[in-house]
Amino acid sequence: MNTSGSAPTKPDTVPTEPEHVFDWLDTEADKRAAAGLVRRLRPRGSDAGELDLAGNDYLGLARDKRVAGAAAAAALRWGAGATGSRLVTGSTELHAELEHELARFCGAQAALVFSSGFAANLGAVTALTGAEAAIVTDRYIHASLIEGCRLSRADVAVVAHCDPAAVAHALATRRKRRALVVTDSVFSVDGDLAPLGELAATCREHGVALLVDDAHGLGVLGDGGRGAVHEAGLAGAPNVVTTVTLSKSLGAQGGAVLGPRRVIRHLVDTARSFIFDTALAPASAAAALAALGVLKAEPELPGRVCAAAGELSARLGAAGLSVTAPAAAVVSVSAPSPDEAVGWAARCAEHGVRVGCFRPPSVPDGVSRLRLTARADLTEADLDRAVSVITDTAPPAAR
Amino acid sequence: MNTSGSAPTKPDTVPTEPEHVFDWLDTEADKRAAAGLVRRLRPRGSDAGELDLAGNDYLGLARDKRVAGAAAAAALRWGAGATGSRLVTGSTELHAELEHELARFCGAQAALVFSSGFAANLGAVTALTGAEAAIVTDRYIHASLIEGCRLSRADVAVVAHCDPAAVAHALATRRKRRALVVTDSVFSVDGDLAPLGELAATCREHGVALLVDDAHGLGVLGDGGRGAVHEAGLAGAPNVVTTVTLSKSLGAQGGAVLGPRRVIRHLVDTARSFIFDTALAPASAAAALAALGVLKAEPELPGRVCAAAGELSARLGAAGLSVTAPAAAVVSVSAPSPDEAVGWAARCAEHGVRVGCFRPPSVPDGVSRLRLTARADLTEADLDRAVSVITDTAPPAAR
Repeated sequence: MNTSGSAPTKPDTVPTEPEHVFDWLDTEADKRAAAGLVRRLRPRGSDAGELDLAGNDYLGLARDKRVAGAAAAAALRWGAGATGSRLVTGSTELHAELEHELARFCGAQAALVFSSGFAANLGAVTALTGAEAAIVTDRYIHASLIEGCRLSRADVAVVAHCDPAAVAHALATRRKRRALVVTDSVFSVDGDLAPLGELAATCREHGVALLVDDAHGLGVLGDGGRGAVHEAGLAGAPNVVTTVTLSKSLGAQGGAVLGPRRVIRHLVDTARSFIFDTALAPASAAAALAALGVLKAEPELPGRVCAAAGELSARLGAAGLSVTAPAAAVVSVSAPSPDEAVGWAARCAEHGVRVGCFRPPSVPDGVSRLRLTARADLTEADLDRAVSVITDTAPPAAR
Repeated sequence: MNTSGSAPTKPDTVPTEPEHVFDWLDTEADKRAAAGLVRRLRPRGSDAGELDLAGNDYLGLARDKRVAGAAAAAALRWGAGATGSRLVTGSTELHAELEHELARFCGAQAALVFSSGFAANLGAVTALTGAEAAIVTDRYIHASLIEGCRLSRADVAVVAHCDPAAVAHALATRRKRRALVVTDSVFSVDGDLAPLGELAATCREHGVALLVDDAHGLGVLGDGGRGAVHEAGLAGAPNVVTTVTLSKSLGAQGGAVLGPRRVIRHLVDTARSFIFDTALAPASAAAALAALGVLKAEPELPGRVCAAAGELSARLGAAGLSVTAPAAAVVSVSAPSPDEAVGWAARCAEHGVRVGCFRPPSVPDGVSRLRLTARADLTEADLDRAVSVITDTAPPAAR
């Protein structure tokens, strides 16, 4: 049966047998296999012994005893789950304390915790726009922001990467008065930094709002890890909203929106990914709260991440690889093709170094690459080992 | 400045000052206040001493020592967070074991764990449809499924509630060959059960797929709590996909999709809410796994939930309230207006009984109500107290 459905047609008069209803998935799987785009889950053990340059645990706090211990204690005290949505039974004093501390740390008026950064982005974009608004976004924003734009029913203008002039042009030519400019701070794939100061100035000039996803900035950039928005002097700005994740530098799970108090109030009443989702588990809220405490007690941690990322990039570049200059913890290394990227990452893993391998649709530009992430607790020996394994296993065409 | 933007216009030449960019949110807040639709977060303590008839912890497992203990142990062993997305560093052996056990328990070929039920629904609906497909949905499906439909770009037909003939008509008149019928099993607001057998027969006749959100069925309905899909004899059907949550009967956090192996493979490769989201925290995965173990060891728990819900409904109905006959754990009681629903729930809380209060947009039909949920561990004394408080505090017009 032809299931490609190129043009709208009446369905066949002979219906598909139940066993064949999902046959089209096999066809799709064959296409992905031919394009080198099949993904496999590789469950890891609890003490893999690998050198991890793939995760987003930038400060090494996921397994820190203070953080993991806080998670364990909260599970025992509050229960394994929150038992309901935030507006019914899911809001505990832990969630409220985390929101208070997050807002205070980052310099925002208020914060709202979601069950994931993905949900926070969906909620912020949709609740702050709608059919009567325009959105102007950088073309390389995170997938969760893209989903938010698609759900928003707003006019969406996608503009060139890190290009404030393109944003200004889109704002000047928009057809809806109300508008939201959307960007990542540190872009997740290449690790480069958006021109936040210029974007904010553009938004001010045009009288519109700015939404920044600081998932990869919190804990890494800014004074003591207060994030890229804080570093750009935009914390507390009345037209700026920030989203963050609790699952990267803070070593836990979840996400949050930070911004003016009235924005947070609006999200409580209208953000569907907030209202209709079970609240974050108490253990994750407690872990993020403990991680914030560690970050305040050890403000030197963020600097260590950036130094390690810089060294990794410099040494791989010196070895002839095509590598980005990291603005934060993420270092990207180009690979010649999806298949070669997969093979390269697999050879690294065989040598005990786990690296990320990003291929379409996880890369905005279609270019496959290894994605390396630095951590505050990487040693010189770790960096030596990483550089030697990655360069020794590189495909010839990568140089 | 007028920010309502009724018709597309060029923006004003005088831009809004940054402090006024979000003024429109105050206008919206005023409208909600006038309509009685303002929501407030009320963080609870860890030992509130309230009788909880609002949460979704149907089996009382969130605070069960075996479940909370498993969460605590996992946080200490695996860390507070999963450190990355499922396809990078976030898949642990815990996630794999949970998927294996969930699939086996529910009778599906395979399962895939997401960070929430919301994310599982988004992923399943979008990955199994697309612009070349038609979706036929019950009008009362959960908000997360609605968001999935909106994101899917499919032709979406919304049909009457629990009406297989309406589904058949929509399928017969669809313009795309490939189609997915979408329904909740137990509807989250009123607690009624979809006619799953008839819907499945309709799907078979028309050669299309059926997606059932069994969030409120798992742990409550079916043999030993295997869910409404299992009870309807549809577990393992080649054209049926089920989504479940780990945050209700299983007392944890997260969600999962269950279905044919090729469906799960397809989701791993294409579901954006899977690929671009941090993996579920190890503590939550371990808790859900432990809860499954409790459910297998104590197969009488689900029957207790249904008996308690039935008694609650019968006694409130006998007292003259307008109450639903529960198919599972959820009992719905109509309130005269949003304001009266809020007042009623507040009076219950003052008397130590926490009940859900559902108002637009959380109710599909615009009718505000109290939403009560039964638990396996409710005692006769709890039920006496609940019935007396709810009836004593009822607004006169509720009878």
